[in-house]
Amino acid sequence: MFGHGSHLLSSKDLTREDLERIFEEAEKMLPYARKEKFGDILAGKVLATLFYEPSTRTRFSFEAAMIRLGGQVISNPEMVITSSAAKGESLKDTGETVSRFADVIAMRHFEAGAVAELAKGSSVPVLNAGDGSADHPTQGLLDAFTIWREFGSLDGLTIGMMGDLKYGRVPHSQYEILSKFGVKFVFIAADGLEMPDKYEGERVKDVSEVISDLDVLAVTRVQKERFDGGEFDYRVDSELLKSAKEKMIVIHPLPRVGELAEEVDADSRAKYFDQITNGVAVRMALLRIVCGYGE
Amino acid sequence: MFGHGSHLLSSKDLTREDLERIFEEAEKMLPYARKEKFGDILAGKVLATLFYEPSTRTRFSFEAAMIRLGGQVISNPEMVITSSAAKGESLKDTGETVSRFADVIAMRHFEAGAVAELAKGSSVPVLNAGDGSADHPTQGLLDAFTIWREFGSLDGLTIGMMGDLKYGRVPHSQYEILSKFGVKFVFIAADGLEMPDKYEGERVKDVSEVISDLDVLAVTRVQKERFDGGEFDYRVDSELLKSAKEKMIVIHPLPRVGELAEEVDADSRAKYFDQITNGVAVRMALLRIVCGYGE
Amino acid sequence: MFGHGSHLLSSKDLTREDLERIFEEAEKMLPYARKEKFGDILAGKVLATLFYEPSTRTRFSFEAAMIRLGGQVISNPEMVITSSAAKGESLKDTGETVSRFADVIAMRHFEAGAVAELAKGSSVPVLNAGDGSADHPTQGLLDAFTIWREFGSLDGLTIGMMGDLKYGRVPHSQYEILSKFGVKFVFIAADGLEMPDKYEGERVKDVSEVISDLDVLAVTRVQKERFDGGEFDYRVDSELLKSAKEKMIVIHPLPRVGELAEEVDADSRAKYFDQITNGVAVRMALLRIVCGYGE
Repeated sequence: MFGHGSHLLSSKDLTREDLERIFEEAEKMLPYARKEKFGDILAGKVLATLFYEPSTRTRFSFEAAMIRLGGQVISNPEMVITSSAAKGESLKDTGETVSRFADVIAMRHFEAGAVAELAKGSSVPVLNAGDGSADHPTQGLLDAFTIWREFGSLDGLTIGMMGDLKYGRVPHSQYEILSKFGVKFVFIAADGLEMPDKYEGERVKDVSEVISDLDVLAVTRVQKERFDGGEFDYRVDSELLKSAKEKMIVIHPLPRVGELAEEVDADSRAKYFDQITNGVAVRMALLRIVCGYGE
Repeated sequence: MFGHGSHLLSSKDLTREDLERIFEEAEKMLPYARKEKFGDILAGKVLATLFYEPSTRTRFSFEAAMIRLGGQVISNPEMVITSSAAKGESLKDTGETVSRFADVIAMRHFEAGAVAELAKGSSVPVLNAGDGSADHPTQGLLDAFTIWREFGSLDGLTIGMMGDLKYGRVPHSQYEILSKFGVKFVFIAADGLEMPDKYEGERVKDVSEVISDLDVLAVTRVQKERFDGGEFDYRVDSELLKSAKEKMIVIHPLPRVGELAEEVDADSRAKYFDQITNGVAVRMALLRIVCGYGE
Repeated sequence: MFGHGSHLLSSKDLTREDLERIFEEAEKMLPYARKEKFGDILAGKVLATLFYEPSTRTRFSFEAAMIRLGGQVISNPEMVITSSAAKGESLKDTGETVSRFADVIAMRHFEAGAVAELAKGSSVPVLNAGDGSADHPTQGLLDAFTIWREFGSLDGLTIGMMGDLKYGRVPHSQYEILSKFGVKFVFIAADGLEMPDKYEGERVKDVSEVISDLDVLAVTRVQKERFDGGEFDYRVDSELLKSAKEKMIVIHPLPRVGELAEEVDADSRAKYFDQITNGVAVRMALLRIVCGYGE
C-alpha cells in the first residue's frame, strides 16, 4: 500500500485503493493549492528537487505544493551539469547523499529507470517527476484526479487519447492509472504514433469519428521531429467540439504548441489550466502521505 | 492607479502620485532592507522569479525583499534553457501556468515586450525585472528613490546622465520616471551613444563642462563592443569630483567595469552601494503594494 | 579567534582552540542535522550560496544546515554564467553587493584565492565552500569532526591519506586542520601524485604495508586524466580491511568512482555516508558561530 515512507516510482505500482485515497487527500488540499489557505503541516520538512532535465512547470508545482503546506525546498534545477554526475557518481550514491539532506525527493531524469536507481540508495521517499520515455506518474495522477473531480467517479467513462501515443510517456502513465478503473479507451493516433499493442482499447485514426462518444479527450503534444502532419489533423478547435458532449472535458499536460486552438480556452469543457492547480493539490497529497501526515 | 493586483510593466505607466506612494512605502521598508528588522507581512505569499536572462543582482534583490517580509520564493535562474520555452510554449500560456503556482511574478527577459506578453496570461501581478533594451522599471525606481531620499524631493534638481544613453535601458527608465517631476536633464554621451531625440534635455559631450551644475550624476556602463573609447572619457574619479557640488551624488546601477574609479567609493557623494539596499526597499514596497498590504 | 562576524577563508586560519569549539558546537547540532529536531535560532537570517562551479552536495549541505535552523536561502547554483561575472565585475564589488542581500555567504569558486577576494568587499561573513585547488575548509572540518567523534580526541592518532595528494585540495585542507593536533600522517600515493614536500609525514607507495597501523584511512578520488592506474592500486575493499584495526575508520569526501568498493559500505568502519550528516552539523555550527548564536 502506498503510504508513509513510500517511493512513487511507477504509475503501475498504485492500486485502485491507493488512487482513491490520493484523490480524496488531493480534494482536501484544493483550498491550499488554490491559494485560499496556507498550511503548516509540512513545517520542518525539506523537499529536494533534483531535475536532471529542466521542467519549470513540474518543479514549480512540487515546490509550490511543499511551500504552501509550510515546508522548505532545496533545489537543483539542472543536475545534468553538476559535478558529481560529471564525475561519474552512481545514482544510488547520489540517493544516499541527498536523502541525508532532505525529508523527501522529487526527481526528473532523462533516462527510464533512473529514478528507481536513485531510490535504491535513498533513506527518504522518492517521487518520480518523470523519467525518460518511461513514466510520469504525478502527471497521470493529476489527469485522473481532474477527471474524477468532474465526473465524481471514473467507472464507466470513455476516454479518448490523442497525440503521440507511441513515444509519449504521458499517455502510458494515464493508461496505467485509468485502467485501474472501469474505463473504455479510444486511441486516436496517426500511423507510426499508435499506442503500443499491449495497451487495450479501440484504435481509430480520425477524432471526428469518435468525438461524440467521448467523456474525456486527453490530448498530448506531438513533437514535430516525430511527425510531419501529413493528412492527420491533431488540432482541437471549436469546430471539433461542436460534435462533443456538453459534459465532455478536454485535458492536456501542457505546454501546447498548436494542437489546442486558443479559442478553446474559453470553452467550459477546457480543463487544462485547472489541471495545473489540480497538479499542486495532487502533489500536496503525495507529500503529505509519504511524509506521514495523510489521514 | 498602481495598487493591489497591478502589474508593473513599464516605467511610463507610473504617475507622479504612484511614484510618491512607492517612495513613501519604500522609506518604511528601509529597516527591513537594512536587516535591522525581519517582517512577516508577506507570510503565506509566494514569489516566482522567472529569469530568461541571468541577473544575480536583480534576482537576489527581489528574493531578499520577499523573504525578509516573510514570503517564500520559487525560482528559475535561467529560463532560457527550460523545456517549455524550448518546446515553443507561448509566454501567455507560461504566464497562466506560473500564476497558478505563485502570488506574484518577477520576470527578466532578453526581449522587449516579453514581460507584457507573459502578463496577458497571468492571474497575479507581474513585475518587470528588465526586458531587453526596453525598460528596467525597478532600477529606475530605485535610482529615483535614492535621489528622493538624498534631497527630500525631486523637483528642481539637475540630473546628469552619462554613459550609453542610446542602447542602455537604464537611462530610458530613469528618464521616464524622473521626468514625472520638475527636473532638468543633461545628457552626456559620446558620438553614436547619444540619448534619442525624443527625450528632452541639454546635450553635451564633456562632463567637465557641466559637472559643477549637477545635483545628480547618473552613470551607466558602456559596453566595449559598442564604444572603443576614443577621445571621450567616461571615467568618474576623484579629480572630476573636485569640481562637483558638495551635496551632489553619484549613482550607478552596477556592475561597473572601469567607469567609476575605486577611489570614489570612499567619497560621501558615492551612493551606488547604498542603492543596492534602496533597491531591496523599493522591491519590498512594490511586493507589498501589489499583494494588497501597502498602507 | 574565529567567532561572530568571522570569515572562514582558509583551513590554516583555524587554531586548535577554534577547531575544538567548532567540534563541540557541531556535536550539539547533530540532532538537527539528523532531522530529529528542527531549529529556529537562525530565523530571520538569509544565506546566499554563490557557486561559480556547481557542487550539489556542498551547496545542499549548506542550504539544509541553514534551513533546518530556521534560516532562509537565496541561491545561485552556477554563477559562472551570470551577467555580472560575464560583464567583468570585480569579486570585491560582487561581495559588497551580495552582502547587502544576505547575512552570510557560502561561496565555491574554480580559482584559488577568489573567495578571499570576494570577502574583501563583503560586510557579512563569507564561508569558503572550496576555491580551486587551494582549499576546502568545511570538508577538512567535517573530516576532522568525524574522526574526533569516533575517537573522542585527535591526539595520538595515525592518519593515512591515500589518493591524489598532489593536486587534490581535500588532503591539503585535512592536513592543515589535523596537524593542529598531535597526529601522525602517512601519505600513500603513486608516483606523480605524492603529497608536496612541505607537508610532514611518512611516505609510502603501498597501502597494504601500513594498513594495520592506521586509525584513519582518508581516501580521496584520483582523476583519471591525472593517473592511468598502472601498478598502483588505490582500491579499498573488504580484503584490504581484513588487515586493518577493528576500530579503524575509512573516510572519503564523495563522490567516489571506484576507489571504494561497494562491499565496504556494510562494514561498520565505513564512515563516508555518516560524514554527510556530520557535514551538515559542522556547517550548522559555523553558521551559528559567525551569525553570533554560538554559545
